[in-house]
Amino acid sequence: MKANYIEHIGIAVKNIDEAKKYYEEVLGLQCYNTEIVADQKVKTAFFKVGETKIELLEATSNESPIAKFINKRGEGIHHIAFAVDDTNAALKHAEDKGIRTIDKTARKGAEGLNIGFLHPKSTKGVLTELCS
Amino acid sequence: MKANYIEHIGIAVKNIDEAKKYYEEVLGLQCYNTEIVADQKVKTAFFKVGETKIELLEATSNESPIAKFINKRGEGIHHIAFAVDDTNAALKHAEDKGIRTIDKTARKGAEGLNIGFLHPKSTKGVLTELCS
Repeated sequence: MKANYIEHIGIAVKNIDEAKKYYEEVLGLQCYNTEIVADQKVKTAFFKVGETKIELLEATSNESPIAKFINKRGEGIHHIAFAVDDTNAALKHAEDKGIRTIDKTARKGAEGLNIGFLHPKSTKGVLTELCS
Repeated sequence: MKANYIEHIGIAVKNIDEAKKYYEEVLGLQCYNTEIVADQKVKTAFFKVGETKIELLEATSNESPIAKFINKRGEGIHHIAFAVDDTNAALKHAEDKGIRTIDKTARKGAEGLNIGFLHPKSTKGVLTELCS
């Protein structure tokens, strides 16, 4: 596997509309898309910054992983997503290297990407997404 | 201010040599530089991924901000650094927008950059570095 670039950084926020103001008015970025990912119980907002995206994540239910994250640690950076050539091959490679994977095979994420997660217990505390 | 791209993502780790193995063997990245930043009491290791860098941070003293971060939250993502045209102008802009800044003016960081930090209390929980 070769991580080609950082596809996005996922940031857990309580309120997307308020957080958007910070990214737009202070950092000068522009929100180009919002999307509900029903599967993950989140509302997302995307900003492009260079070749990477900032993905704001707001829980749509108390059962959402984002609600649990915020309850435990507060708002903040939730995960890093690396672009790879083939998510399934990358997950397999990570597993072969002894990494605990959250997904055995790729599933569909926001923006139609094929995504899979590595467990932070295996990656020095960083929830890591691989996507293609 | 306009954040041009993500210059780097800072990740707090207990042991740089162990963390390096993960970034090299699993993600296929290559460490191109290590550096001691005496001012911040950290040892750093840099990996290039697309236009962005991963900056691993290991404390060189218990008084290091990185040691305190890990004691409180465990290993994980510590900060995001956005490249801006002029760090001093960007800090001033953020302050004018009501953002609490950790640095009033730019100081020297790793790799000779002019850096300044915004306080996570003002940025929805994300310790944010501006650099040029």
